[in-house]
Amino acid sequence: MTPSLLLANAVLTDGRRVDIHVKNGEIAALHVAGQPANHGTERIDLDGALVIPGLVDGHIHLDKTLLGLPFIPHIPGGSVAERVAAEKTLRRSLTMPVEQRAIRLVAQVAASGTTAMRSHVDIDDLVKLDGLHGLLRVREAARGHADIQIVAFPQSGIVTLPGAADMLDQAVREGADLVGGLDPAGFDHDVEGHLDVIFGIAERRGVGIDIHLHDFGSLGCSELRRIAERTTASGLGGRVAVSHAYALGNVDDGEFGLTAEALARAQVAIMTNGAGPVPMPPVKRLVAAGVTVFSGSDNIRDAWSPYGNGDMLERAMLVGYRNELSADEELELALGLATDAPAKVLGIARYGIGEGMPADLVAIPAGSVAEAVVNHPTRKLVMKRGRVIAQDGRLVAPLCI
Amino acid sequence: MTPSLLLANAVLTDGRRVDIHVKNGEIAALHVAGQPANHGTERIDLDGALVIPGLVDGHIHLDKTLLGLPFIPHIPGGSVAERVAAEKTLRRSLTMPVEQRAIRLVAQVAASGTTAMRSHVDIDDLVKLDGLHGLLRVREAARGHADIQIVAFPQSGIVTLPGAADMLDQAVREGADLVGGLDPAGFDHDVEGHLDVIFGIAERRGVGIDIHLHDFGSLGCSELRRIAERTTASGLGGRVAVSHAYALGNVDDGEFGLTAEALARAQVAIMTNGAGPVPMPPVKRLVAAGVTVFSGSDNIRDAWSPYGNGDMLERAMLVGYRNELSADEELELALGLATDAPAKVLGIARYGIGEGMPADLVAIPAGSVAEAVVNHPTRKLVMKRGRVIAQDGRLVAPLCI
Repeated sequence: MTPSLLLANAVLTDGRRVDIHVKNGEIAALHVAGQPANHGTERIDLDGALVIPGLVDGHIHLDKTLLGLPFIPHIPGGSVAERVAAEKTLRRSLTMPVEQRAIRLVAQVAASGTTAMRSHVDIDDLVKLDGLHGLLRVREAARGHADIQIVAFPQSGIVTLPGAADMLDQAVREGADLVGGLDPAGFDHDVEGHLDVIFGIAERRGVGIDIHLHDFGSLGCSELRRIAERTTASGLGGRVAVSHAYALGNVDDGEFGLTAEALARAQVAIMTNGAGPVPMPPVKRLVAAGVTVFSGSDNIRDAWSPYGNGDMLERAMLVGYRNELSADEELELALGLATDAPAKVLGIARYGIGEGMPADLVAIPAGSVAEAVVNHPTRKLVMKRGRVIAQDGRLVAPLCI
Repeated sequence: MTPSLLLANAVLTDGRRVDIHVKNGEIAALHVAGQPANHGTERIDLDGALVIPGLVDGHIHLDKTLLGLPFIPHIPGGSVAERVAAEKTLRRSLTMPVEQRAIRLVAQVAASGTTAMRSHVDIDDLVKLDGLHGLLRVREAARGHADIQIVAFPQSGIVTLPGAADMLDQAVREGADLVGGLDPAGFDHDVEGHLDVIFGIAERRGVGIDIHLHDFGSLGCSELRRIAERTTASGLGGRVAVSHAYALGNVDDGEFGLTAEALARAQVAIMTNGAGPVPMPPVKRLVAAGVTVFSGSDNIRDAWSPYGNGDMLERAMLVGYRNELSADEELELALGLATDAPAKVLGIARYGIGEGMPADLVAIPAGSVAEAVVNHPTRKLVMKRGRVIAQDGRLVAPLCI
């Protein structure tokens, strides 16, 4: 049980200036700012900082990061299959265990205000379930800093990799929260076979689904519509997400409309990280069509990309910049991609700044949501379940494994 | 004359660890690290930070920024003409003079390591030469922090705006270093008439040219080829740049090749800021074709965009991210867009870390250029002409007007 604490002079996104009374890990009360603190209650003055709920990273790869190692030059490679091969080569040479790399990344993202995340973990013929076991330990060690959801991710395919389907099933039985997928057409060349395995596990084990889909154009959109159909047929609406879905960014308006409508109806969510060089799901048009769009860091200094730092407020800026989200309400939408939307997708039931909510929050020195997104300044304070875990961008609650 | 100073334990981009002896505003000598400092020489330990020459911002709008004012919500508007109109409306309401806004921006970019920049300044029927006069004062006041080159920029057109040609000419006579242009086809609807004015002023006054070109596709590329032809005809090769040139990002390979070759032959440089939502000049392909490509911030929290912070190392990251520059040598190319390339375009004769060079430099806590670009960490130290002007991201040499 954490002691009672008063976060004084917080400004909420609606402009109200309040004192936030935190007790037993929850927001006990929101008072009009300026009330004297109760005797014995620790008081932290936020000096007018904007307070938002903890950032949520909807797509991270904790097992892939090379953080903690000296900078490793990027190995070029174009296709997904080439990148998978390059990653395996690199992984064989790594001496630092997955837990050590992953915990560094959790510490880094927690310091920037991420209090919940969905991490994919590679399940393949090389690492088998080792990565999962590492991340299960990290999830436990990091409980005081962030909630970690784990997706068993077939980075080397399912249909084309003997034993993969069984390993994915085993991963879910051993603690993975969701089952993943990868380019049913472009990587595995068998859309139905790939989806049979994933949806089979999801239905059998009662878990959700999150599929990586890089396939472009009409191919990718046809897969999206098939995923939507199977989601409805399985009664999994609201528990299925597709990550990347570049295809939504390079089809004509007719096919886009058709596909967006299918996703909305089936309640399939779309994750975009605002990828740099490729077509991108158009955020505003998807949201207007009723699709839940959320964001995540994706790769952070790993074999797939040297870029990335795990800051979800900077990510909101990047996705907003790529989508020309500029008016204040558009920048609020950008922030929503890193807060409300992924919270909903991750199934975080109690989320937000309100009485009785878990005290997972971030204080940002900015005058408004719009300013917070475009400037993404160093976070003043991060709180997880009522405990201050970071101040001025630095972790103050040690995290180790 | 600045005193003698030793920057100890610097790491250069080639990996050498050196002590940099700074004297009279220049790099007097590079010693193997670890030599004892001379008696009386101040010593700053850089602790292995990477030292690069001062960052150069090839495209900034010092007069447009709203820095120093409370955050002003973005006014939506699609076309260039709509944005010009929205900006004029906003500008009429501004109470803070251009010098006050611009000097704040210079201070901000100097703190992040920009020691030279090219700023456009609006010349139109509303502000006339007022913006120029403001920036001339800023240029003078900021001499100890950054070298500022000024482009007289016809933001409201030339052919379509009575008096604009004369004002541009007057601006150059009063101190602008270059003459600018704006979408000869898309905005002014008279390519030859627009270019006649610009090239006329450039030849008459002996100044360079920097043209904003947002026109897409074959229209934009035909303008680029016409600019190349006129550059050669005027003998202005090496002194003409085109900013944005989105068109290079959305034509077929044949027209791209033709246009790139024309630009290379005529020595017309291309500026890209890695714009978010629009097609972008492909950096690697242009460089491979022999075109000088450089980068700049463009808009920084102004009527055109709420985004931007003026950090040219972050800009190098963004342009690299948009162009998928990932291997170490590609990330070195990304840094070059913010250092060597704009230095060449701006005509900075003595540039680089070497004996006898001006002591304009930046120390970055990173192990390599690649790491510096992807992480763009807070600068450890910024030096302009031998004087430390910023440390740990904060300006230590006051700048005011």
